[in-house]
Amino acid sequence: MGEKLYEGKAKVVYATTEKPDEVLMVFKDEATAFDGKKRGTIADKGVRNAAISAVLFRYLQDHGIPGHFLEQVDERTLRVRRVKIIPLEVVVRNIAAGSFSRRLGWPEGQLLVEPLVEFFYKDDALGDPLVTEDHIRLLGLATADEINRLKELALAVNRLLQDFWRERGIVLVDFKLEFGKTETGEILLADEISPDTCRLWDAETGEKLDKDRFRRDLGRVEEAYAEVLRRARSAPGQAK
Amino acid sequence: MGEKLYEGKAKVVYATTEKPDEVLMVFKDEATAFDGKKRGTIADKGVRNAAISAVLFRYLQDHGIPGHFLEQVDERTLRVRRVKIIPLEVVVRNIAAGSFSRRLGWPEGQLLVEPLVEFFYKDDALGDPLVTEDHIRLLGLATADEINRLKELALAVNRLLQDFWRERGIVLVDFKLEFGKTETGEILLADEISPDTCRLWDAETGEKLDKDRFRRDLGRVEEAYAEVLRRARSAPGQAK
Repeated sequence: MGEKLYEGKAKVVYATTEKPDEVLMVFKDEATAFDGKKRGTIADKGVRNAAISAVLFRYLQDHGIPGHFLEQVDERTLRVRRVKIIPLEVVVRNIAAGSFSRRLGWPEGQLLVEPLVEFFYKDDALGDPLVTEDHIRLLGLATADEINRLKELALAVNRLLQDFWRERGIVLVDFKLEFGKTETGEILLADEISPDTCRLWDAETGEKLDKDRFRRDLGRVEEAYAEVLRRARSAPGQAK
Repeated sequence: MGEKLYEGKAKVVYATTEKPDEVLMVFKDEATAFDGKKRGTIADKGVRNAAISAVLFRYLQDHGIPGHFLEQVDERTLRVRRVKIIPLEVVVRNIAAGSFSRRLGWPEGQLLVEPLVEFFYKDDALGDPLVTEDHIRLLGLATADEINRLKELALAVNRLLQDFWRERGIVLVDFKLEFGKTETGEILLADEISPDTCRLWDAETGEKLDKDRFRRDLGRVEEAYAEVLRRARSAPGQAK
Protein backbone atom coordinates (compact mmCIF):
# COMPACT_ATOMS: atom_id res chain seq x y z
CA MET A 1 0.00 0.00 0.00
CA GLY A 2 1.02 3.58 -0.56
CA GLU A 3 0.53 6.73 1.48
CA LYS A 4 -2.50 7.08 3.75
CA LEU A 5 -4.74 9.64 2.06
CA TYR A 6 -7.67 9.83 4.46
CA GLU A 7 -8.93 8.20 7.63
CA GLY A 8 -12.64 8.37 8.35
CA LYS A 9 -14.84 6.82 11.01
CA ALA A 10 -15.29 3.48 9.24
CA LYS A 11 -12.55 3.32 6.60
CA VAL A 12 -8.98 4.26 5.75
CA VAL A 13 -8.05 5.19 2.19
CA TYR A 14 -4.54 4.54 0.86
CA ALA A 15 -2.86 5.44 -2.39
CA THR A 16 -1.72 2.49 -4.49
CA THR A 17 1.94 2.29 -5.34
CA GLU A 18 1.51 1.94 -9.12
CA LYS A 19 -1.65 3.70 -10.24
CA PRO A 20 -2.37 7.31 -9.31
CA ASP A 21 -6.03 6.99 -10.37
CA GLU A 22 -6.78 4.07 -8.04
CA VAL A 23 -6.95 3.86 -4.24
CA LEU A 24 -7.46 1.17 -1.61
CA MET A 25 -10.34 1.40 0.89
CA VAL A 26 -9.71 -0.56 4.09
CA PHE A 27 -12.81 -1.18 6.23
CA LYS A 28 -12.47 -0.87 10.02
CA ASP A 29 -14.48 -2.41 12.88
CA GLU A 30 -14.95 0.95 14.64
CA ALA A 31 -18.52 2.23 14.77
CA THR A 32 -19.83 5.68 15.61
CA ALA A 33 -23.34 7.08 15.81
CA PHE A 34 -25.14 10.34 16.59
CA ASP A 35 -22.43 12.55 15.05
CA GLY A 36 -19.68 10.68 16.87
CA LYS A 37 -21.30 10.99 20.34
CA LYS A 38 -21.58 7.18 20.55
CA ARG A 39 -18.53 5.07 19.79
CA GLY A 40 -17.77 1.38 19.83
CA THR A 41 -16.45 -1.61 17.94
CA ILE A 42 -18.45 -4.21 16.05
CA ALA A 43 -16.40 -7.39 15.66
CA ASP A 44 -15.63 -8.17 12.00
CA LYS A 45 -17.77 -5.27 10.78
CA GLY A 46 -14.99 -4.23 8.40
CA VAL A 47 -14.85 -7.72 6.89
CA ARG A 48 -18.62 -7.91 6.45
CA ASN A 49 -18.98 -4.39 5.06
CA ALA A 50 -16.13 -4.79 2.57
CA ALA A 51 -17.71 -7.98 1.26
CA ILE A 52 -21.27 -6.59 1.20
CA SER A 53 -20.09 -3.43 -0.58
CA ALA A 54 -18.20 -5.53 -3.14
CA VAL A 55 -21.33 -7.58 -3.90
CA LEU A 56 -23.58 -4.52 -4.15
CA PHE A 57 -21.24 -2.35 -6.22
CA ARG A 58 -20.63 -5.23 -8.62
CA TYR A 59 -24.40 -5.73 -8.94
CA LEU A 60 -25.10 -2.02 -9.44
CA GLN A 61 -22.27 -1.54 -11.94
CA ASP A 62 -23.43 -4.64 -13.86
CA HIS A 63 -26.83 -2.93 -14.09
CA GLY A 64 -25.48 0.32 -15.54
CA ILE A 65 -24.73 2.46 -12.47
CA PRO A 66 -21.34 4.17 -12.87
CA GLY A 67 -19.38 3.28 -9.73
CA HIS A 68 -15.87 3.45 -8.32
CA PHE A 69 -15.51 -0.28 -7.52
CA LEU A 70 -12.76 -2.31 -9.23
CA GLU A 71 -12.11 -5.43 -7.13
CA GLN A 72 -11.89 -6.87 -3.64
CA VAL A 73 -8.21 -7.19 -2.73
CA ASP A 74 -8.41 -8.90 0.65
CA GLU A 75 -11.13 -9.45 3.25
CA ARG A 76 -11.12 -5.81 4.41
CA THR A 77 -9.88 -4.03 1.30
CA LEU A 78 -11.48 -2.84 -1.93
CA ARG A 79 -9.57 -1.37 -4.86
CA VAL A 80 -11.57 1.55 -6.27
CA ARG A 81 -11.18 4.40 -8.74
CA ARG A 82 -9.87 7.57 -7.18
CA VAL A 83 -12.50 10.33 -7.06
CA LYS A 84 -12.96 13.64 -5.35
CA ILE A 85 -15.92 13.11 -3.03
CA ILE A 86 -18.81 15.56 -3.48
CA PRO A 87 -19.47 16.75 0.11
CA LEU A 88 -23.09 15.63 0.15
CA GLU A 89 -24.75 12.67 1.78
CA VAL A 90 -27.48 11.60 -0.64
CA VAL A 91 -30.20 9.82 1.31
CA VAL A 92 -33.04 7.85 -0.29
CA ARG A 93 -36.03 6.88 1.84
CA ASN A 94 -38.82 4.39 1.07
CA ILE A 95 -40.18 4.12 4.62
CA ALA A 96 -40.11 6.72 7.42
CA ALA A 97 -37.38 6.11 10.01
CA GLY A 98 -34.54 7.77 11.89
CA SER A 99 -33.91 11.49 11.47
CA PHE A 100 -36.78 11.80 8.98
CA SER A 101 -39.27 10.55 11.58
CA ARG A 102 -37.80 12.72 14.32
CA ARG A 103 -37.63 15.85 12.19
CA LEU A 104 -41.07 15.66 10.58
CA GLY A 105 -43.02 13.72 13.19
CA TRP A 106 -43.82 10.70 11.02
CA PRO A 107 -43.99 7.39 12.86
CA GLU A 108 -41.20 4.96 12.00
CA GLY A 109 -42.43 2.34 9.55
CA GLN A 110 -44.84 4.57 7.62
CA LEU A 111 -44.55 3.90 3.90
CA LEU A 112 -43.78 6.98 1.76
CA VAL A 113 -46.00 7.37 -1.31
CA GLU A 114 -42.86 7.69 -3.44
CA PRO A 115 -39.13 7.43 -2.73
CA LEU A 116 -37.71 10.62 -1.22
CA VAL A 117 -34.21 11.97 -1.92
CA GLU A 118 -32.60 14.19 0.72
CA PHE A 119 -29.23 15.90 0.70
CA PHE A 120 -27.09 16.54 3.77
CA TYR A 121 -24.00 18.73 3.75
CA LYS A 122 -21.04 16.57 4.84
CA ASP A 123 -19.57 18.79 7.54
CA ASP A 124 -18.87 17.26 10.94
CA ALA A 125 -18.53 20.64 12.69
CA LEU A 126 -22.04 21.61 11.53
CA GLY A 127 -23.51 18.15 12.26
CA ASP A 128 -24.18 17.29 8.59
CA PRO A 129 -27.20 19.60 8.18
CA LEU A 130 -30.05 18.97 5.76
CA VAL A 131 -29.71 21.23 2.71
CA THR A 132 -32.09 22.18 -0.06
CA GLU A 133 -31.12 22.21 -3.72
CA ASP A 134 -30.87 26.01 -3.52
CA HIS A 135 -28.44 25.68 -0.60
CA ILE A 136 -26.33 23.23 -2.59
CA ARG A 137 -26.05 25.65 -5.51
CA LEU A 138 -25.44 28.63 -3.23
CA LEU A 139 -22.70 26.81 -1.27
CA GLY A 140 -21.14 25.77 -4.59
CA LEU A 141 -21.32 22.07 -3.66
CA ALA A 142 -22.86 21.04 -6.99
CA THR A 143 -24.46 22.64 -10.04
CA ALA A 144 -28.15 22.30 -10.88
CA ASP A 145 -27.25 19.70 -13.57
CA GLU A 146 -25.13 17.75 -11.09
CA ILE A 147 -27.94 17.80 -8.51
CA ASN A 148 -30.34 16.37 -11.10
CA ARG A 149 -27.78 13.71 -12.01
CA LEU A 150 -27.29 12.78 -8.33
CA LYS A 151 -31.05 12.44 -7.81
CA GLU A 152 -31.46 10.38 -10.98
CA LEU A 153 -28.61 8.05 -9.98
CA ALA A 154 -29.83 7.78 -6.38
CA LEU A 155 -33.34 6.79 -7.50
CA ALA A 156 -31.94 4.28 -10.01
CA VAL A 157 -29.77 2.75 -7.26
CA ASN A 158 -32.87 2.60 -5.05
CA ARG A 159 -34.87 0.65 -7.66
CA LEU A 160 -32.01 -1.80 -8.17
CA LEU A 161 -31.29 -2.28 -4.46
CA GLN A 162 -34.98 -2.68 -3.63
CA ASP A 163 -35.15 -5.52 -6.19
CA PHE A 164 -31.91 -7.06 -4.93
CA TRP A 165 -32.98 -7.10 -1.28
CA ARG A 166 -36.62 -8.04 -1.94
CA GLU A 167 -35.38 -11.23 -3.61
CA ARG A 168 -33.38 -11.94 -0.45
CA GLY A 169 -36.14 -11.37 2.11
CA ILE A 170 -35.10 -7.84 3.11
CA VAL A 171 -36.98 -4.54 2.98
CA LEU A 172 -34.81 -1.58 1.99
CA VAL A 173 -36.05 1.18 4.32
CA ASP A 174 -33.52 3.91 3.48
CA PHE A 175 -29.84 4.39 2.68
CA LYS A 176 -27.10 6.97 2.28
CA LEU A 177 -24.93 7.27 -0.81
CA GLU A 178 -21.86 9.32 -1.58
CA PHE A 179 -20.69 10.28 -5.02
CA GLY A 180 -17.35 11.45 -6.35
CA LYS A 181 -15.98 13.07 -9.46
CA THR A 182 -13.13 11.72 -11.56
CA GLU A 183 -10.43 13.95 -13.05
CA THR A 184 -12.55 14.20 -16.21
CA GLY A 185 -15.65 15.26 -14.25
CA GLU A 186 -17.52 11.94 -14.47
CA ILE A 187 -19.80 11.34 -11.48
CA LEU A 188 -19.33 7.90 -9.89
CA LEU A 189 -21.12 6.20 -7.03
CA ALA A 190 -18.43 5.94 -4.33
CA ASP A 191 -17.88 5.17 -0.62
CA GLU A 192 -19.59 2.01 0.67
CA ILE A 193 -23.04 0.37 0.73
CA SER A 194 -23.50 -1.71 3.87
CA PRO A 195 -25.57 -2.08 7.05
CA ASP A 196 -23.67 1.02 8.25
CA THR A 197 -25.26 3.09 5.51
CA CYS A 198 -28.62 1.33 4.89
CA ARG A 199 -31.64 0.47 7.00
CA LEU A 200 -32.49 -3.16 6.22
CA TRP A 201 -35.46 -4.92 7.84
CA ASP A 202 -36.22 -8.62 7.60
CA ALA A 203 -39.26 -8.85 5.31
CA GLU A 204 -41.02 -11.45 7.46
CA THR A 205 -40.21 -10.50 11.03
CA GLY A 206 -39.38 -6.78 10.65
CA GLU A 207 -36.16 -7.42 12.59
CA LYS A 208 -33.58 -4.69 12.07
CA LEU A 209 -30.45 -5.99 10.29
CA ASP A 210 -28.37 -2.80 10.31
CA LYS A 211 -26.51 -0.25 12.38
CA ASP A 212 -29.67 0.68 14.29
CA ARG A 213 -28.91 -2.45 16.39
CA PHE A 214 -25.73 -0.62 17.53
CA ARG A 215 -27.30 2.86 17.71
CA ARG A 216 -30.20 1.64 19.86
CA ASP A 217 -28.38 -1.09 21.84
CA LEU A 218 -30.62 -3.84 20.44
CA GLY A 219 -27.99 -6.58 20.80
CA ARG A 220 -26.97 -9.22 18.23
CA VAL A 221 -25.17 -6.56 16.22
CA GLU A 222 -22.44 -8.79 14.77
CA GLU A 223 -25.02 -11.43 13.88
CA ALA A 224 -27.04 -8.89 11.89
CA TYR A 225 -24.05 -7.86 9.76
CA ALA A 226 -23.16 -11.53 9.19
CA GLU A 227 -26.75 -12.30 8.18
CA VAL A 228 -26.82 -9.43 5.68
CA LEU A 229 -23.60 -10.72 4.11
CA ARG A 230 -25.02 -14.25 3.96
CA ARG A 231 -28.12 -13.01 2.18
CA ALA A 232 -26.15 -10.68 -0.14
CA ARG A 233 -24.18 -13.74 -1.30
CA SER A 234 -27.25 -15.97 -1.66
CA ALA A 235 -29.02 -16.51 -4.97
CA PRO A 236 -32.36 -14.67 -5.48
CA GLY A 237 -35.17 -16.48 -3.68
CA GLN A 238 -32.72 -18.72 -1.80
CA ALA A 239 -31.94 -16.54 1.23
CA LYS A 240 -33.96 -18.51 3.76
CA MET B 1 -65.68 41.95 17.04
CA GLY B 2 -66.90 38.43 16.62
CA GLU B 3 -65.64 35.11 17.92
CA LYS B 4 -61.92 34.63 18.65
CA LEU B 5 -60.69 32.29 15.91
CA TYR B 6 -57.02 31.95 16.77
CA GLU B 7 -54.49 33.30 19.23
CA GLY B 8 -50.83 33.18 18.26
CA LYS B 9 -47.67 34.55 19.85
CA ALA B 10 -47.99 38.03 18.38
CA LYS B 11 -51.59 38.37 17.22
CA VAL B 12 -55.19 37.41 17.91
CA VAL B 13 -57.58 36.79 15.03
CA TYR B 14 -61.32 37.46 15.41
CA ALA B 15 -64.27 36.84 13.14
CA THR B 16 -66.13 39.93 12.03
CA THR B 17 -69.81 40.13 12.86
CA GLU B 18 -71.03 40.86 9.32
CA LYS B 19 -68.70 39.29 6.79
CA PRO B 20 -67.71 35.62 6.98
CA ASP B 21 -64.86 36.11 4.46
CA GLU B 22 -63.13 38.83 6.51
CA VAL B 23 -61.34 38.68 9.86
CA LEU B 24 -59.69 41.13 12.25
CA MET B 25 -56.02 40.74 13.23
CA VAL B 26 -55.17 42.38 16.56
CA PHE B 27 -51.44 42.89 17.20
CA LYS B 28 -50.10 42.21 20.71
CA ASP B 29 -47.04 43.53 22.54
CA GLU B 30 -45.91 40.05 23.61
CA ALA B 31 -42.68 38.86 22.07
CA THR B 32 -41.18 35.37 21.93
CA ALA B 33 -37.95 34.05 20.45
CA PHE B 34 -36.05 30.78 20.07
CA ASP B 35 -39.20 28.65 19.66
CA GLY B 36 -40.85 30.28 22.67
CA LYS B 37 -37.90 29.70 25.05
CA LYS B 38 -37.48 33.47 25.45
CA ARG B 39 -40.53 35.58 26.28
CA GLY B 40 -41.13 39.22 27.01
CA THR B 41 -43.08 42.33 26.16
CA ILE B 42 -42.05 45.14 23.84
CA ALA B 43 -44.02 48.28 24.67
CA ASP B 44 -46.27 49.38 21.79
CA LYS B 45 -44.93 46.65 19.50
CA GLY B 46 -48.48 45.78 18.49
CA VAL B 47 -49.20 49.38 17.52
CA ARG B 48 -45.99 49.71 15.49
CA ASN B 49 -46.33 46.34 13.77
CA ALA B 50 -49.96 46.89 12.82
CA ALA B 51 -49.05 50.23 11.26
CA ILE B 52 -45.90 48.94 9.54
CA SER B 53 -47.79 45.93 8.17
CA ALA B 54 -50.54 48.20 6.87
CA VAL B 55 -48.02 50.39 5.02
CA LEU B 56 -46.15 47.43 3.54
CA PHE B 57 -49.21 45.40 2.49
CA ARG B 58 -50.75 48.48 0.87
CA TYR B 59 -47.47 49.10 -1.01
CA LEU B 60 -47.12 45.46 -2.10
CA GLN B 61 -50.76 45.15 -3.16
CA ASP B 62 -50.48 48.43 -5.09
CA HIS B 63 -47.54 46.82 -6.92
CA GLY B 64 -49.44 43.69 -7.95
CA ILE B 65 -48.86 41.26 -5.08
CA PRO B 66 -52.12 39.52 -4.14
CA GLY B 67 -52.49 40.06 -0.38
CA HIS B 68 -55.06 39.70 2.38
CA PHE B 69 -54.97 43.33 3.60
CA LEU B 70 -58.16 45.43 3.45
CA GLU B 71 -57.78 48.33 5.90
CA GLN B 72 -56.43 49.43 9.26
CA VAL B 73 -59.35 49.58 11.71
CA ASP B 74 -57.66 50.97 14.81
CA GLU B 75 -54.09 51.36 16.01
CA ARG B 76 -53.66 47.61 16.71
CA THR B 77 -56.16 46.11 14.31
CA LEU B 78 -56.14 45.26 10.61
CA ARG B 79 -59.15 44.01 8.67
CA VAL B 80 -58.02 41.29 6.26
CA ARG B 81 -59.48 38.67 3.95
CA ARG B 82 -60.05 35.34 5.61
CA VAL B 83 -57.70 32.65 4.33
CA LYS B 84 -56.59 29.19 5.37
CA ILE B 85 -52.91 29.60 6.22
CA ILE B 86 -50.54 27.26 4.35
CA PRO B 87 -48.43 25.78 7.17
CA LEU B 88 -45.11 26.97 5.73
CA GLU B 89 -42.85 29.80 6.76
CA VAL B 90 -41.43 31.14 3.50
CA VAL B 91 -38.09 32.80 4.25
CA VAL B 92 -36.20 34.97 1.76
CA ARG B 93 -32.56 35.80 2.48
CA ASN B 94 -30.33 38.42 0.82
CA ILE B 95 -27.56 38.39 3.44
CA ALA B 96 -26.47 35.55 5.73
CA ALA B 97 -27.78 35.85 9.31
CA GLY B 98 -29.57 33.95 12.06
CA SER B 99 -30.38 30.28 11.61
CA PHE B 100 -28.89 30.25 8.10
CA SER B 101 -25.50 31.33 9.47
CA ARG B 102 -25.67 28.87 12.36
CA ARG B 103 -26.80 25.94 10.24
CA LEU B 104 -24.41 26.36 7.32
CA GLY B 105 -21.48 28.10 9.00
CA TRP B 106 -21.66 31.31 6.98
CA PRO B 107 -20.63 34.46 8.85
CA GLU B 108 -23.46 36.89 9.53
CA GLY B 109 -23.37 39.76 7.05
CA GLN B 110 -22.07 37.78 4.07
CA LEU B 111 -23.94 38.78 0.91
CA LEU B 112 -25.59 35.88 -0.95
CA VAL B 113 -24.94 35.83 -4.71
CA GLU B 114 -28.68 35.65 -5.27
CA PRO B 115 -31.75 35.73 -3.00
CA LEU B 116 -32.44 32.39 -1.34
CA VAL B 117 -35.92 31.04 -0.59
CA GLU B 118 -36.25 28.56 2.27
CA PHE B 119 -39.36 26.77 3.55
CA PHE B 120 -39.97 25.81 7.17
CA TYR B 121 -42.81 23.57 8.28
CA LYS B 122 -44.97 25.54 10.74
CA ASP B 123 -45.17 23.05 13.60
CA ASP B 124 -44.29 24.24 17.10
CA ALA B 125 -43.89 20.72 18.51
CA LEU B 126 -41.28 19.94 15.84
CA GLY B 127 -39.56 23.34 16.19
CA ASP B 128 -40.53 24.55 12.68
CA PRO B 129 -38.03 22.36 10.80
CA LEU B 130 -36.48 23.27 7.44
CA VAL B 131 -38.16 21.31 4.65
CA THR B 132 -37.23 20.68 1.04
CA GLU B 133 -39.70 20.96 -1.82
CA ASP B 134 -39.91 17.15 -1.89
CA HIS B 135 -40.83 17.15 1.81
CA ILE B 136 -43.55 19.73 1.16
CA ARG B 137 -45.11 17.59 -1.56
CA LEU B 138 -44.74 14.39 0.47
CA LEU B 139 -46.32 15.96 3.57
CA GLY B 140 -49.14 17.26 1.37
CA LEU B 141 -48.50 20.87 2.48
CA ALA B 142 -48.53 22.24 -1.08
CA THR B 143 -48.44 20.95 -4.65
CA ALA B 144 -45.46 21.45 -6.97
CA ASP B 145 -47.37 24.27 -8.74
CA GLU B 146 -48.18 25.94 -5.43
CA ILE B 147 -44.53 25.71 -4.33
CA ASN B 148 -43.45 27.42 -7.55
CA ARG B 149 -46.10 30.10 -7.02
CA LEU B 150 -44.93 30.67 -3.41
CA LYS B 151 -41.32 31.05 -4.55
CA GLU B 152 -42.28 33.39 -7.36
CA LEU B 153 -44.37 35.56 -5.03
CA ALA B 154 -41.71 35.53 -2.30
CA LEU B 155 -39.02 36.69 -4.72
CA ALA B 156 -41.32 39.40 -6.14
CA VAL B 157 -42.05 40.61 -2.60
CA ASN B 158 -38.31 40.63 -1.94
CA ARG B 159 -37.59 42.86 -4.95
CA LEU B 160 -40.35 45.29 -3.95
CA LEU B 161 -39.39 45.39 -0.27
CA GLN B 162 -35.69 45.80 -1.08
CA ASP B 163 -36.59 48.86 -3.18
CA PHE B 164 -38.93 50.21 -0.52
CA TRP B 165 -36.40 49.95 2.29
CA ARG B 166 -33.39 51.02 0.21
CA GLU B 167 -35.16 54.34 -0.45
CA ARG B 168 -35.58 54.69 3.31
CA GLY B 169 -31.99 53.95 4.35
CA ILE B 170 -32.57 50.34 5.38
CA VAL B 171 -30.99 47.11 4.15
CA LEU B 172 -33.43 44.18 3.92
CA VAL B 173 -31.36 41.25 5.22
CA ASP B 174 -34.06 38.55 5.32
CA PHE B 175 -37.72 38.07 6.14
CA LYS B 176 -40.42 35.47 6.72
CA LEU B 177 -43.71 35.41 4.85
CA GLU B 178 -46.85 33.37 5.29
CA PHE B 179 -49.41 32.70 2.62
CA GLY B 180 -53.01 31.57 2.76
CA LYS B 181 -55.63 30.22 0.41
CA THR B 182 -59.08 31.70 -0.10
CA GLU B 183 -62.18 29.53 -0.48
CA THR B 184 -61.65 29.64 -4.25
CA GLY B 185 -58.02 28.47 -3.95
CA GLU B 186 -56.39 31.84 -4.65
CA ILE B 187 -53.02 32.21 -2.88
CA LEU B 188 -52.71 35.48 -0.94
CA LEU B 189 -49.83 36.97 1.02
CA ALA B 190 -51.06 36.90 4.62
CA ASP B 191 -49.95 37.33 8.26
CA GLU B 192 -47.77 40.39 8.98
CA ILE B 193 -44.62 42.09 7.70
CA SER B 194 -42.83 43.88 10.52
CA PRO B 195 -39.58 44.01 12.50
CA ASP B 196 -40.83 40.77 14.13
CA THR B 197 -40.60 38.99 10.77
CA CYS B 198 -37.83 40.89 8.94
CA ARG B 199 -34.16 41.61 9.61
CA LEU B 200 -33.66 45.32 8.87
CA TRP B 201 -30.26 47.01 9.19
CA ASP B 202 -29.60 50.72 9.00
CA ALA B 203 -27.85 51.22 5.65
CA GLU B 204 -25.30 53.69 7.05
CA THR B 205 -24.48 52.38 10.51
CA GLY B 206 -25.45 48.70 10.18
CA GLU B 207 -27.51 49.08 13.38
CA LYS B 208 -30.13 46.35 13.78
CA LEU B 209 -33.69 47.72 13.66
CA ASP B 210 -35.61 44.50 14.27
CA LYS B 211 -36.45 41.72 16.70
CA ASP B 212 -32.78 40.70 16.97
CA ARG B 213 -32.52 43.60 19.47
CA PHE B 214 -34.91 41.60 21.68
CA ARG B 215 -33.47 38.15 20.86
CA ARG B 216 -29.92 39.26 21.65
CA ASP B 217 -30.64 41.74 24.45
CA LEU B 218 -29.18 44.66 22.50
CA GLY B 219 -31.35 47.29 24.20
CA ARG B 220 -33.34 50.14 22.58
CA VAL B 221 -35.87 47.62 21.31
CA GLU B 222 -38.93 49.92 21.40
CA GLU B 223 -36.93 52.69 19.72
CA ALA B 224 -36.03 50.39 16.83
CA TYR B 225 -39.67 49.48 16.13
CA ALA B 226 -40.65 53.17 16.33
CA GLU B 227 -37.84 54.11 13.96
CA VAL B 228 -38.90 51.48 11.42
CA LEU B 229 -42.46 52.85 11.52
CA ARG B 230 -41.17 56.42 11.10
CA ARG B 231 -39.17 55.39 8.03
CA ALA B 232 -41.97 53.25 6.60
CA ARG B 233 -44.20 56.36 6.67
CA SER B 234 -41.54 58.69 5.25
CA ALA B 235 -41.37 59.58 1.56
CA PRO B 236 -38.63 57.87 -0.52
CA GLY B 237 -35.27 59.54 0.04
CA GLN B 238 -36.62 61.54 3.01
CA ALA B 239 -36.05 59.08 5.87
CA LYS B 240 -33.13 60.90 7.49
